[in-house]
Amino acid sequence: MSSHHGLAFRISTFGESHGGAVGVIIDGCPPRLELDEADIQRDLDRRKPGQSEIVTPRAEEDQCKILSGVFEGRTIGTPIAVVVYNKDARPEAYSEMESAFRPSHADYTYQAKYGIRNWQGGGRASARETIGRVAAAAVAKKVLAQFAPELEIVAYVKSIHNHVAEVDVDAVKFEQVEANIVRCPDAAMAVKMIDFIKAVRSEGDSVGGVIECVVRGCPAGWGEPVFDKIEAELAKAMLSLPATKGFEIGSGFAGTHQRGSEHNDAFVMSEGHVRTRTNRSGGVQGGITNGEPIFFRVAFKPTATIFREQETVTTTGEATMLKARGRHDPCVLPRAVPMVEAMAALVLCDHALRHRAQCGQP
Amino acid sequence: MSSHHGLAFRISTFGESHGGAVGVIIDGCPPRLELDEADIQRDLDRRKPGQSEIVTPRAEEDQCKILSGVFEGRTIGTPIAVVVYNKDARPEAYSEMESAFRPSHADYTYQAKYGIRNWQGGGRASARETIGRVAAAAVAKKVLAQFAPELEIVAYVKSIHNHVAEVDVDAVKFEQVEANIVRCPDAAMAVKMIDFIKAVRSEGDSVGGVIECVVRGCPAGWGEPVFDKIEAELAKAMLSLPATKGFEIGSGFAGTHQRGSEHNDAFVMSEGHVRTRTNRSGGVQGGITNGEPIFFRVAFKPTATIFREQETVTTTGEATMLKARGRHDPCVLPRAVPMVEAMAALVLCDHALRHRAQCGQP
Amino acid sequence: MSSHHGLAFRISTFGESHGGAVGVIIDGCPPRLELDEADIQRDLDRRKPGQSEIVTPRAEEDQCKILSGVFEGRTIGTPIAVVVYNKDARPEAYSEMESAFRPSHADYTYQAKYGIRNWQGGGRASARETIGRVAAAAVAKKVLAQFAPELEIVAYVKSIHNHVAEVDVDAVKFEQVEANIVRCPDAAMAVKMIDFIKAVRSEGDSVGGVIECVVRGCPAGWGEPVFDKIEAELAKAMLSLPATKGFEIGSGFAGTHQRGSEHNDAFVMSEGHVRTRTNRSGGVQGGITNGEPIFFRVAFKPTATIFREQETVTTTGEATMLKARGRHDPCVLPRAVPMVEAMAALVLCDHALRHRAQCGQP
Amino acid sequence: MSSHHGLAFRISTFGESHGGAVGVIIDGCPPRLELDEADIQRDLDRRKPGQSEIVTPRAEEDQCKILSGVFEGRTIGTPIAVVVYNKDARPEAYSEMESAFRPSHADYTYQAKYGIRNWQGGGRASARETIGRVAAAAVAKKVLAQFAPELEIVAYVKSIHNHVAEVDVDAVKFEQVEANIVRCPDAAMAVKMIDFIKAVRSEGDSVGGVIECVVRGCPAGWGEPVFDKIEAELAKAMLSLPATKGFEIGSGFAGTHQRGSEHNDAFVMSEGHVRTRTNRSGGVQGGITNGEPIFFRVAFKPTATIFREQETVTTTGEATMLKARGRHDPCVLPRAVPMVEAMAALVLCDHALRHRAQCGQP
Repeated sequence: MSSHHGLAFRISTFGESHGGAVGVIIDGCPPRLELDEADIQRDLDRRKPGQSEIVTPRAEEDQCKILSGVFEGRTIGTPIAVVVYNKDARPEAYSEMESAFRPSHADYTYQAKYGIRNWQGGGRASARETIGRVAAAAVAKKVLAQFAPELEIVAYVKSIHNHVAEVDVDAVKFEQVEANIVRCPDAAMAVKMIDFIKAVRSEGDSVGGVIECVVRGCPAGWGEPVFDKIEAELAKAMLSLPATKGFEIGSGFAGTHQRGSEHNDAFVMSEGHVRTRTNRSGGVQGGITNGEPIFFRVAFKPTATIFREQETVTTTGEATMLKARGRHDPCVLPRAVPMVEAMAALVLCDHALRHRAQCGQP
Repeated sequence: MSSHHGLAFRISTFGESHGGAVGVIIDGCPPRLELDEADIQRDLDRRKPGQSEIVTPRAEEDQCKILSGVFEGRTIGTPIAVVVYNKDARPEAYSEMESAFRPSHADYTYQAKYGIRNWQGGGRASARETIGRVAAAAVAKKVLAQFAPELEIVAYVKSIHNHVAEVDVDAVKFEQVEANIVRCPDAAMAVKMIDFIKAVRSEGDSVGGVIECVVRGCPAGWGEPVFDKIEAELAKAMLSLPATKGFEIGSGFAGTHQRGSEHNDAFVMSEGHVRTRTNRSGGVQGGITNGEPIFFRVAFKPTATIFREQETVTTTGEATMLKARGRHDPCVLPRAVPMVEAMAALVLCDHALRHRAQCGQP
Repeated sequence: MSSHHGLAFRISTFGESHGGAVGVIIDGCPPRLELDEADIQRDLDRRKPGQSEIVTPRAEEDQCKILSGVFEGRTIGTPIAVVVYNKDARPEAYSEMESAFRPSHADYTYQAKYGIRNWQGGGRASARETIGRVAAAAVAKKVLAQFAPELEIVAYVKSIHNHVAEVDVDAVKFEQVEANIVRCPDAAMAVKMIDFIKAVRSEGDSVGGVIECVVRGCPAGWGEPVFDKIEAELAKAMLSLPATKGFEIGSGFAGTHQRGSEHNDAFVMSEGHVRTRTNRSGGVQGGITNGEPIFFRVAFKPTATIFREQETVTTTGEATMLKARGRHDPCVLPRAVPMVEAMAALVLCDHALRHRAQCGQP
Repeated sequence: MSSHHGLAFRISTFGESHGGAVGVIIDGCPPRLELDEADIQRDLDRRKPGQSEIVTPRAEEDQCKILSGVFEGRTIGTPIAVVVYNKDARPEAYSEMESAFRPSHADYTYQAKYGIRNWQGGGRASARETIGRVAAAAVAKKVLAQFAPELEIVAYVKSIHNHVAEVDVDAVKFEQVEANIVRCPDAAMAVKMIDFIKAVRSEGDSVGGVIECVVRGCPAGWGEPVFDKIEAELAKAMLSLPATKGFEIGSGFAGTHQRGSEHNDAFVMSEGHVRTRTNRSGGVQGGITNGEPIFFRVAFKPTATIFREQETVTTTGEATMLKARGRHDPCVLPRAVPMVEAMAALVLCDHALRHRAQCGQP
């Protein structure tokens, strides 16, 4: 179990879905930053269950509490511990998971690795685990605001199943994303997505999709080749989120259908700055940001836990059928939007500090 | 610059394309492993330039030398240093890069980050940097063979531009891959790919594609949620390779078009083992290997350096045109196949040792 | 602020003396270990304030709570979070520290580094910070018991000021240490030490001394040259404890007065095992344990906070006099004994897992 | 084997005494620093064998070569690889160590840990291993000069056996240290030490002593509580050097004989700066530098390899007698002086960068 992320802005998360609490310790945060629980709560609220009719109805307020590292409203450079107590756990809804493995869930692999698992609610493999990440990212964003006041991170649902939104990465705004419960800034498509998710849920089924994220206003120079290239760090961060199966940046897989003469981004001068005429690179060249918008896409598979009979085996190796009960998201994407933003913020914040370590002020 | 990879099997690479040498230090390698330079040379030869008519003609033998960590043909548990001296550097072919930035290359971003760069041959952003990785991976494979004698890693070219190969991930063999110079196990498609690359090169242009990699025989239980999930580690490792723009595992982006009831992999018993009927998960669930074949795809963009006039700017901010000289791959994929294998081996070896640390023998 | 310790058995501590709570996250703990709060509480009780008449009277029960990582009484391989809420904080007793720096305390340096500090009760520089370490070490000891059932760690007060105990490192027992409130196994000297500490306290003064620690039953082979030699790790761990000024292992500084022919430990066979006739090495040679008892000494300076007028400066740079109020230990050593044991356990546990990673079972 | 040091200024060393080469990779070095091989050679020459009549006569020029990371005389932010080839290895002088363990050397423990060892010349446990450290530290000093132009690190021999020098830590100069071959700035005592070492050597014996090191001009604010306190980092760094048995900072063990009222360093204002009237803290309070001189002492045991018959056992467990041949230092201290300086520079450089990461410019 490796629940550490970051070298300079280091976080350690903890907590099972049905344990006492979930949370995070942030180590290495710059001092004298204004911070209170409301700053963190804002992002946790976007992630919490029960926020709309298309997500899990689990009733968790997810109220965070800062236990250390803040004094009189400012960070003091010491570890910041944030905790959210679990309130609405219902382990009884998972009793059949004690003896059988949910297909495509982590039940079997946790058992295979550790020889034991908390079968109540997915344990550490639950999306509830991401609370610590989102809380830490709320702090990371405050750090980033000091390094690059213009920096903004906007993630949104790009597609649900075959429903694909049209979105302009250079212009999309946070408010457009938050304007509907599916978090798709293409308002017309959002309606279709919502209807589709409801229909899928009524069938006891689930569905996946793609989240796109754009970072505008990021300075040139962040990222550390060769292993900690910024796109490598983003890829890892995104693939560490539950239910993810793919990552692409800039032109991504589609870019493999172009020739170099079509794909290359010509450099041009603009208002005294080096810019690129196109942005197939997605804001990153050679593993280092080039000052253009960073944009990438993350594939989320359909939720593994569904309310239908499925073929599986028991922990003692017998064939059985399993049909989930409990409260689950028919589609994780609306709630995954703030998770994607959070991971992007954590990666960038860590690299802002690392860049300052090696190269001085950005 | 972060040139470290791995926690338990830790490597540190060094070297510019046109400096004195490139190489690697491997720290944490288990002792008493048989190892000599020929073991490493075998993989370096698959990566080296000049090996066929569709890759760069730079004439480097890439002879490796082990400087430490091996005694009387066996590893002794101390750091293993491997070095390859640069022989055929021709910095004069890069003189125009001193004053102008190649579009979509790392020239500009290195300058932006460090305020200085070795403009001869791409410096550290050259694919030559991967020699240290491939050398280290040759050692990693030896470690893996002790943990899982059945484990095999097979990577191959899945597509070049619009030319897509048909390959069975459960059956494809190393020998099929090495049977042709483009490293595509679909022999018929390989011919087309080779012709296509030659044609593109004759136009002074470049082209990209997709490499697929399958790992068969990997034990269940490797990978460390939540941040070091095996797919997250693989994603990072692959996106740290030059020219990569995307990563997907198992069903990947295509899986977002399925419902949970279609996508889930049913568990079944087979010869006393828990297996899955399908493998849309790609051998990984909840970030931990489940014993099924791990397979993933990596998108490589067309080579940035092309032999055509391109619009760019000088280091002093003036518009200019740039046409590359020197020796470059019109398509990096044939030589990137051993690089993808190498990164997979490094990730798995590190996690084999890490799993042993926490959970005992696999 | 770096509040991380260990590579394989990784802990992250948090918490200020007068914040909401102190605690720790343990990441990488082997699964299936029996663990409950009582296991941890036992060690916390030995460290807690108010336990005797010669330590600070702060009335903290230091009740720990496990928030994650344990299920049905066993560890599950996920992060173990342990928290202790602060109950008896009295920030008003520190109000004068807001504007003046205590001599030889961390007030000034925290201000110099972070530009801000929690001036209530010493913040993170308080000995209260060690609660997380002691809690984590209680878990580490359980891991060690699996690797080396015979392993025992016994620390004790070797000297207070000029009062030096006679102790046989090969025979001293935990029970002898716990038999008196100063934690000195030389019963006669313990009486003198206790009287001395009381006398010093009555004068508003403080006093230091030396803690010795012996680890018996440690297998040969732990420790990782060249930078993570076991004595180097122990030295760091001990010097990270508040108020420490020195560390020596085996013959230590006194060994510099011997010649090689006197100092060397001859190897002999004993019951089929390689042993040393003497143990000036202190159980460590070349940075790796040799199976002999590991013993080392740690120097603790007199407590900085005293109840006497002292010359100092204010935060605005004016000369002033400062006399502490509040509740402070006149001598930290009795309560530091479990801290020294804790750090030894953390270092050894980390290296037990690291050794298993590289070299397999011990 | 952990041959990594530092988080921000990260070095990886490699090499056995009788392998092909020894060296280091430095990762994270700031760019645009002037650097050439002569900068490194200067320090290597102070460490090399054969430099005087009281050290080992092994004839190694220890010529270093920079293989990467430097372009046109300046660092470029990429890994700097430095290598020194072994020239004068004489494995035949160690043939009896193949089958017998030298008392108090690392022969036995390396065998116990790894099940194999390079028995020629001590392998990785040889002082030759420190070449990589000294080379890296030459670069670290250049970085430090940018952060703190006034910073100077002066180490020297404080005592050899019972011969103790008188040295003023506030005034001692590099030139005084280098003025004699034993590197003791007390010229009169140096003569006695040299005579004493010669006498000991003529008897085939060896001797140890204490090295003291002072760092003047270090800014306040470096060091990261709670685990990476600057004294903890220094303690670890020093105890990672071969033959070390103890470390103390400031008042050290002697300070345990003082009361708080005697030991505390009063704060006073001096030319607008907060200073301390005395410096028993040794320049560090609460794990963070306070701007006063940092001074510490390191105990080195007598060299284990002596030219006298010693009782030991063979690798097959039989009692035997062993008398070393080969070329060994009768006293490691004169050559250990630059090693102590090197480790101090590496720790401080790493923390200079880490401080900049978290807190901005110093």
